[in-house]
Amino acid sequence: MIASIKDSPLYPIANPRSIAIFGASNKVTTMGTGLLGSLLDLGFEGEIYPIHLKEDRVLNLKAYRNVLDLPTVPDLALICLPTRIVSEAMDACGRKGIKHAIVISGGFREVGGEGVALEKELIAAANKYGIRFLGPNCIGVTTPRSKLNTTFMTYEGTAGFIGMASQSGSFVTQMFNYLSRHALGFSTAFSVGNEANIDIVDCMEYLSVCPDTKVIGLYIEGIRRGRAFVETARSIVPKKPIVALYVGGSETGKRAGLSHTGALAGPDRLYDGIFRQSGIIRAQSIIELFDICWMLGSPHRTAGRRVVIQTHSGGPGAEAADACGRAGLELPPLSPETIKKLSTLLPHTGSISNPVDFTFSRNLMDYFSTIPEVLLEEKNADVLLYYFSMPNRTLERMLKYMGVPTDQIAELAPELFDAQCEAIINLLEKRQKPFAGYTYQDIYDKLVRRLVERGIPIYQGPQRAVRAIEAAFQYTRLREKISASVSQK
Amino acid sequence: MIASIKDSPLYPIANPRSIAIFGASNKVTTMGTGLLGSLLDLGFEGEIYPIHLKEDRVLNLKAYRNVLDLPTVPDLALICLPTRIVSEAMDACGRKGIKHAIVISGGFREVGGEGVALEKELIAAANKYGIRFLGPNCIGVTTPRSKLNTTFMTYEGTAGFIGMASQSGSFVTQMFNYLSRHALGFSTAFSVGNEANIDIVDCMEYLSVCPDTKVIGLYIEGIRRGRAFVETARSIVPKKPIVALYVGGSETGKRAGLSHTGALAGPDRLYDGIFRQSGIIRAQSIIELFDICWMLGSPHRTAGRRVVIQTHSGGPGAEAADACGRAGLELPPLSPETIKKLSTLLPHTGSISNPVDFTFSRNLMDYFSTIPEVLLEEKNADVLLYYFSMPNRTLERMLKYMGVPTDQIAELAPELFDAQCEAIINLLEKRQKPFAGYTYQDIYDKLVRRLVERGIPIYQGPQRAVRAIEAAFQYTRLREKISASVSQK
Repeated sequence: MIASIKDSPLYPIANPRSIAIFGASNKVTTMGTGLLGSLLDLGFEGEIYPIHLKEDRVLNLKAYRNVLDLPTVPDLALICLPTRIVSEAMDACGRKGIKHAIVISGGFREVGGEGVALEKELIAAANKYGIRFLGPNCIGVTTPRSKLNTTFMTYEGTAGFIGMASQSGSFVTQMFNYLSRHALGFSTAFSVGNEANIDIVDCMEYLSVCPDTKVIGLYIEGIRRGRAFVETARSIVPKKPIVALYVGGSETGKRAGLSHTGALAGPDRLYDGIFRQSGIIRAQSIIELFDICWMLGSPHRTAGRRVVIQTHSGGPGAEAADACGRAGLELPPLSPETIKKLSTLLPHTGSISNPVDFTFSRNLMDYFSTIPEVLLEEKNADVLLYYFSMPNRTLERMLKYMGVPTDQIAELAPELFDAQCEAIINLLEKRQKPFAGYTYQDIYDKLVRRLVERGIPIYQGPQRAVRAIEAAFQYTRLREKISASVSQK
Repeated sequence: MIASIKDSPLYPIANPRSIAIFGASNKVTTMGTGLLGSLLDLGFEGEIYPIHLKEDRVLNLKAYRNVLDLPTVPDLALICLPTRIVSEAMDACGRKGIKHAIVISGGFREVGGEGVALEKELIAAANKYGIRFLGPNCIGVTTPRSKLNTTFMTYEGTAGFIGMASQSGSFVTQMFNYLSRHALGFSTAFSVGNEANIDIVDCMEYLSVCPDTKVIGLYIEGIRRGRAFVETARSIVPKKPIVALYVGGSETGKRAGLSHTGALAGPDRLYDGIFRQSGIIRAQSIIELFDICWMLGSPHRTAGRRVVIQTHSGGPGAEAADACGRAGLELPPLSPETIKKLSTLLPHTGSISNPVDFTFSRNLMDYFSTIPEVLLEEKNADVLLYYFSMPNRTLERMLKYMGVPTDQIAELAPELFDAQCEAIINLLEKRQKPFAGYTYQDIYDKLVRRLVERGIPIYQGPQRAVRAIEAAFQYTRLREKISASVSQK
C-alpha cells in the first residue's frame, strides 16, 4: 500500500497541472474535440497544449505540431487518436519526458485480432520510458474539485465524496446527472478501460489515501489481479468502506441467451465470495451502489440495526416496517420514557408504537422538531427512519385557505420549508444520531431538496433507505472483523 | 359480478352529480374544510351543499342548517364530523332519502373500546335506510375525469387508467404527485377505511366494469371476505390485470419487534398463496406496484419473455442483461436477418449480439430510427428494452461546439428532442411491438419527458423495467390459466 497520495501513479493523472491533448481539433463532432470541450467547460485552470499536425489554434488555444515542441513537460498526455498511431504518440511523449498518460482510443485488445498486437506495442512504448497510463479504451478521469474532466460528457453538479473506479465508462459519465440530482458527486472517478498498465487495484490504492474520498465505489466486470485485489481491499476497509457492483460483465447476455437459468450462478457466487473475503459491500444495481455510498458518506450514517420509524401515515409506515423486517433490521419497542414524552404530543388517533404513526398534529412544526427530537433520544434505537410526505402544492393550498394572499404564499411557503429544514438540521447536529429519510415526493420537492443539499440522504421509497441502513450496519461489522483479523497477524 | 357499472353501489360515490358535505366550515384548518377545498380546486361541476349549523355561506357556497332543508336529494353525503355525531348525520341523510355516503371521520373500530360500539351504531343507521357507504376512517375517493376529489390533498396531474382500492389512504393521496411525475393517474381511487359497509371486493367489482380502468391496483393489510375476494379476482383477471401490495399491515412493526426473523413468514406466505390462487400479480413495494401498472396499462406491453436490449454503453447494457437473467427473462441470439441489417449500421467497435451495443453512431438519429426499427422487426424477440442516456446538457454542448449560436441552441435542442421522440413514437405505432425504456436521467429529461407524456414507460434503472416486463409476461400466463379453468367449469 502507498503511504501518500503523491506516491500513486494516478496522482498526476487525477490532478495534472498541465495536459498535452492528442486528437482535439476544430472539427467539433470528434471525440477528441469533445474531451477538450469538457476540460474547458469545467474551467480547468492548468495549461492545455493541443497537439495538431495542421492547425495553429484548436478551440482558441495555441496548438503545437509536435509534443516535442512544447515549452514545458506536461504532467499528463491525453490521447484520443486513431488506434494505429497511438503507440507513435506514446513514444513521442516518452521522448519529451512525459511520465503519465490516459489513452481514450479503443480498437485494442477488446476487439481481438490485430488489436491485441497493437495493445502490446502500446505497452512496450510506454514501458520503454516508464510511462504509467490509464486505458486504452477508457473514457478518462474526472476530479471536479480540480476542475478536471477528460471525458466527453459535460460534468454536472459539484465535487463530492464518492471515489469511483469503473470498468464501464458509462457508469462514470452517465452518472454525472444522476449524482447531481442527489446533490452527490465524485471526488475522483476513473474509467479504467483495458487496464493495460494501471488497473482497478491501483485506483483503489489511490482512492484509499485520497483525502476527499469518503467511500469507494467499484464497477467490476472481471478482476485480473485477484490476490492483490483482495489484499488491497482488506487494507482499505478498516479506514474506508468499499461498495461494488458486479453484474456479470458484458458477456451476461450471451450466456443468458444460451441458458438463462443458472447461467449466472457460477461467476456470481464466485464474486460474492471474493467480495465477502475482501470486506466489500455488494450492490445489486448501479443505483443501489450510489444509494449505499450516500449513506456511508453521510455524517448521519448508522452503525446499528435498531430502527425507529416516524410516519404520519399507516401505509408508508407499514411499508417501511416490512422492508426492515425483510432486511433483518430490528424495530425495537419504544422505551417507557419515549412513550411518556410522545403521549403529550400525539392525538388520540395516533399510534405510540414503532412505527410511530402520529396521523395529524395540531402544530405542523411538531413533525419536524418535538417529535423527531424525542425519537432521536430513544435509547433503544440506533437510527431514525423518517417519512417525508407533504407535497408543495398541498402546503401552498393550506396557506391559501388560511387566507394568505396569493402573492404572500410565494414568500411564505419557502420560509416554512426553510424553517422545517433548519429544525431537522439543528436536531441532527445536536443529537449526532443517525438519520435516513424516505419519500414518494420528487427529489426537487422543496423540503426534500433543501435537506438533500445539506447532505441528508432521502430515498425514493423505504426499501432503498432500508438497504442503505443495512449496508451501513454491514460495513460496521466488516470493518470490525477485518481489523481484528489484521491485528492478529 | 355486476353487469354494468351503474349497478355498483360505488357508481354514485365515484361519480356523484351532487354532494352534501358535513364538517366543512369557514375555519380553514379543519379536515372538512380541506375536503371541500379539494372538491373546489379540481373544479367539481355538480352541486355542492355544505351543511352547517351556524354559517350561511361556507367557502362562498350557500350553506344549509340541516340536510333535510336541501332543495334536492343529493347523490352523495360526504361526512367529516366528530365521531359521536356521525350516526346522527347518517340518520338525517337517510330521512332525506340519500342512498350513498362516504364517512371520512375516524375514531371507530380502529381505536377499539367505545369506537367499536359507535361503528355498530353507524352501520345500523345506514342499514335502516339502505344507505351504502365507504369508510369510516377513510380518506375518500378521487375520480379526476369527473373532477371529483373528496380527499384533503390537492389532486395533481390528469386522469389516468389505474383503478385503485387501498386500505391506506396515504397510498391514494400521497401518490398524486408521484403518478403525476410519471404522467400516470387514477381512473378512480378508493380509500376503503374500516370497510364497515362497502369493502375492497366491492371496489374490485366496480373497477372491473369501469371503462376508464385498464389495470387495478390494490393495497391490502387484511382481507375480510376471503372467498369472495378470490372469486371476484378470478372473474376479473381474464379481462383486466390486478396488481396488489401486501406488506403485513400496520402490525408488521410490532411483530417485527418481537422476532424479526420469520415473523413475517406466516401471513406473508398466506398472502402469496391467496394472490396466486386469485391470479393477482404481487408487488413488493408501492413504487413497484405503479411500475407494473404502468407497463400493464401501456399499449406497448409485452406478452412474451424474450427481450432484445438496445444500448450504446457496455455497463448499462450488462446491468440490463443481468437483470433479465435474474428475472428469468430470455435474451435470445439475434436472427441472421437482424445481424445482416445491423452490420451496415454499426461501427466496428460496436457489438452485434444481445444486448446490441452500438457504441457510437455516425448519425445521431440512427439511435432513434433505423436501429430500433431493425430490432422491432427481430422475430426472435417479444419486447425491445431500450436504454436512454443522452443528458440534455451534453447535447446542448454538442450543438454549441458545432458552432450553433447560443440563442439558436435554445430553439434547436427542443426540435431535436421532438424529432427523436416522434421517430420512436412512429416506429412503435407502425410495428405494434412492445417496448420499455430505462434510464438514469431524470423523468423530466427532455427526451424522456416527451416519451413518458406519450405513454411510453421509461424506468429508473433496468431492474425496474425488467420487473415490469416480467409482470406483464406473468399476467399473460395467469390470464390463460384462469380463463382455461373458468371455461372448464
